[in-house]
Amino acid sequence: MNFSMIKYILGWVLRLEAVCMGLPLITAVIYQEESGFAFLITLAVAGVVGFLCSYKKPKNRTFRLRDGFVAVALSWILLSVVGAMPFVISGEIPHFYDALFEIVSGFTTTGASVVKDVDALSKCMVFWRSFTHWIGGMGVLVFVLAIIPMENNSSGTTMHLMRAESPGPTVGKLVPRIKQTAKILYGIYIAMTIILIVLLIVGGMPIFDSLTMAFGTAGTGGFAISNAGAGVYAPHLQIILTIFMILFGVNFNLYYLLLLKKFKDFLRSEELRAYLAIITIAIILITINIIGQVGDLGTALLQSSFQVGSIITTTGYATTDFNLWPQFSKMILLFLMFVGACAGSTGGGFKVSRLTILVKNTINEIKSFVHPRSVRVVKMDGKKVEREVIQSISSYLVIYLIIMVLSVLFISLDGFDALTNFSAVSATFNNIGPGLGEVGPMSSFADYSIMSKGILTFDMLAGRLELIPMLLLFSPSVWKK
Amino acid sequence: MNFSMIKYILGWVLRLEAVCMGLPLITAVIYQEESGFAFLITLAVAGVVGFLCSYKKPKNRTFRLRDGFVAVALSWILLSVVGAMPFVISGEIPHFYDALFEIVSGFTTTGASVVKDVDALSKCMVFWRSFTHWIGGMGVLVFVLAIIPMENNSSGTTMHLMRAESPGPTVGKLVPRIKQTAKILYGIYIAMTIILIVLLIVGGMPIFDSLTMAFGTAGTGGFAISNAGAGVYAPHLQIILTIFMILFGVNFNLYYLLLLKKFKDFLRSEELRAYLAIITIAIILITINIIGQVGDLGTALLQSSFQVGSIITTTGYATTDFNLWPQFSKMILLFLMFVGACAGSTGGGFKVSRLTILVKNTINEIKSFVHPRSVRVVKMDGKKVEREVIQSISSYLVIYLIIMVLSVLFISLDGFDALTNFSAVSATFNNIGPGLGEVGPMSSFADYSIMSKGILTFDMLAGRLELIPMLLLFSPSVWKK
Repeated sequence: MNFSMIKYILGWVLRLEAVCMGLPLITAVIYQEESGFAFLITLAVAGVVGFLCSYKKPKNRTFRLRDGFVAVALSWILLSVVGAMPFVISGEIPHFYDALFEIVSGFTTTGASVVKDVDALSKCMVFWRSFTHWIGGMGVLVFVLAIIPMENNSSGTTMHLMRAESPGPTVGKLVPRIKQTAKILYGIYIAMTIILIVLLIVGGMPIFDSLTMAFGTAGTGGFAISNAGAGVYAPHLQIILTIFMILFGVNFNLYYLLLLKKFKDFLRSEELRAYLAIITIAIILITINIIGQVGDLGTALLQSSFQVGSIITTTGYATTDFNLWPQFSKMILLFLMFVGACAGSTGGGFKVSRLTILVKNTINEIKSFVHPRSVRVVKMDGKKVEREVIQSISSYLVIYLIIMVLSVLFISLDGFDALTNFSAVSATFNNIGPGLGEVGPMSSFADYSIMSKGILTFDMLAGRLELIPMLLLFSPSVWKK
Repeated sequence: MNFSMIKYILGWVLRLEAVCMGLPLITAVIYQEESGFAFLITLAVAGVVGFLCSYKKPKNRTFRLRDGFVAVALSWILLSVVGAMPFVISGEIPHFYDALFEIVSGFTTTGASVVKDVDALSKCMVFWRSFTHWIGGMGVLVFVLAIIPMENNSSGTTMHLMRAESPGPTVGKLVPRIKQTAKILYGIYIAMTIILIVLLIVGGMPIFDSLTMAFGTAGTGGFAISNAGAGVYAPHLQIILTIFMILFGVNFNLYYLLLLKKFKDFLRSEELRAYLAIITIAIILITINIIGQVGDLGTALLQSSFQVGSIITTTGYATTDFNLWPQFSKMILLFLMFVGACAGSTGGGFKVSRLTILVKNTINEIKSFVHPRSVRVVKMDGKKVEREVIQSISSYLVIYLIIMVLSVLFISLDGFDALTNFSAVSATFNNIGPGLGEVGPMSSFADYSIMSKGILTFDMLAGRLELIPMLLLFSPSVWKK
């Protein structure tokens, strides 16, 4: 392991976080909140330590794939520990493990909360929670890559960091240089976020709400910014949010294709088509299923679209308590939690592309029983999917299921019912936020034990970083000199 | 498709079923029950039709793998439709779809029941239900292979039938000729069943109970033979049942190794070791978890062992209402439902060998992130597992999950709670029997709608025949001339 390089990267992560904390500090100044001091202290310490760790570039530039994975895992843990500090220092979330759960939930764009009374939080804290969604959505290291002076791509550092943090079975470089790719991605991300903020403000949403709701939507995070949830906004605002949640669940590489005016390639994306097909079918089924309960078609369609868009993109906003929906609709939402958004988006979950590849491969397998001699390859967007990719997706599924099963088992010790436990793990592991039962959209994760919160915190990180980085931390060979 | 050969095989299946119905007929004579006539009628019709279909061997001997799969699927459906007739004719289960659910549950060794009051059934019906477990356990086609005049192995008929009906990722021929292999397997099966019956009778169980409970244990079926369940028997009888359930969940090829005195090979079986390890861990965890509720260690251990043995082998007998156990223990049982027994046993589920191979492969995958260049192969019992096998297990998992998800979704329309629906699908698809919630060990599947019963019936068949045969029936190319 190249620890000196990892220290250097961690230093930059701290510097970045210190800068980011400037925003909640400004919020505190505007609203004249005392909790702002907590940000000032954390910011100062993080900035100084970060600078000390990264003021000079390390000499050893050997940086392997596993170094990339470990660097990413450690970055996210450090980011979270430091990010939790303002909550603890200000006393707004007094226990460290609660604050850690909350901020990991923020950075991983989960949106699961231990705060029962959001209205009791100060504005700067609400701002910070939502802003962490935005930071975590596109990735911290991707941002670091875009800004730090690390030009020499021959060492592989940048590619390995990018690969470790980007969601999806494969990483596509938009342009030959990773640094450039990272800049393009963040450019699109920032532009789309600004458009959303403007639309919300024009639509009549208060400025504070527009900013924070936009951060949560862009990062597919989903922290509620008040006890009332997203249901208080006018229908046209809910529609804007629905559309943008779905847009932020699309692979950002496709937006780059749009910028290059490659509309044909854009429309050819099988992942995009599968993603939109699943959303459409789910919305129709749920609308039909809830119309009797809700009353009229318009409301049913509005509620169904918002919730489907929110869950499949793993955002987790709710405009209604879907816990009260019929069993069939609840099950659709539960399964959408696992499907997740597109690879290369800010959303979590298993990812539509993984699912598509697995299903295609399985259909091939079934066909081979009918015609054993024909050779079949799995294609995505006209290109052959390599055996290694299919193989690694299959393994991904197995690890995914094992972590899922073990997590459910352990948190079952707390004695909640099965639906609560299952959906608590689904909602954190897939970075969604609210689950069903006792952890439904109108409740919080506050009542779980410390052990369970710890497990769910791990699940959020493992889900966001797509398993391998977090698992490698437990491999002894990684820590050998 | 070689339909003339399939007709021939179906004819033999009918002949076999007619013979098997002789036993409940004798039971009816002994207990002087009128329902016996229902067996007499069915037996006569099945015997005559069966004879007409199979009195002469077809000329076309080309028999491909897909013919084998389709023959097996159709055999099981025919077997079930005919087997359901006595229930309908006698009026003891008046609706055909209920009777079909019940008998599919019997042949697939599931043991899920739509009969709310088992004590109201006549003895010959109880006998028939349990006997179908025994027939289905080792496989109908395996039996047919052992008896029908089909010597010419060059056509591949026997191997393809064997492969389609035997559970597990690969089929091992014990001896070069399949016919001989089938005879050996049935020999071991009959011998072990007789030993169990003798032990139960010597232990003080009534003869009728000994026979029917032994059939259910040997086939890992699990129909309760009275409303009281297996809890009424003395502890030493429960221990005998526990041990034999676990024994019948072991790969029968291993017993052949024992007969050949290859003790080393027997002990080297990784699947056996994994199977016993999972059982031991589960028993210990549940014992600790329920001891407070149950009172003393002895009872806790007895209950825990019986239920763990019953669930992992997918038998489904219950000596206690595990619905009342703490959440943690219930979750362990739920996950054991999916693990299932060993390949090549009479048990269902995903199978320990599949799980072991997948986990090993996944560990390799994770290690490859640390040392990308090292080449790794998955080994079982010292032998390399071919890539194709791993690939097909992965696809198996995907199909398994898709059927699971769709089934849960559709039966959710009935409005039962999530745990009930999840465990109803788990319990039928994995051929276990009782689930949790409304379909717990002290309840029945009677209250599900006809559509849900149809889906669960499909799941039982798909689970027993390991997915592919049932799915191929839906492939249009199979039905083309």
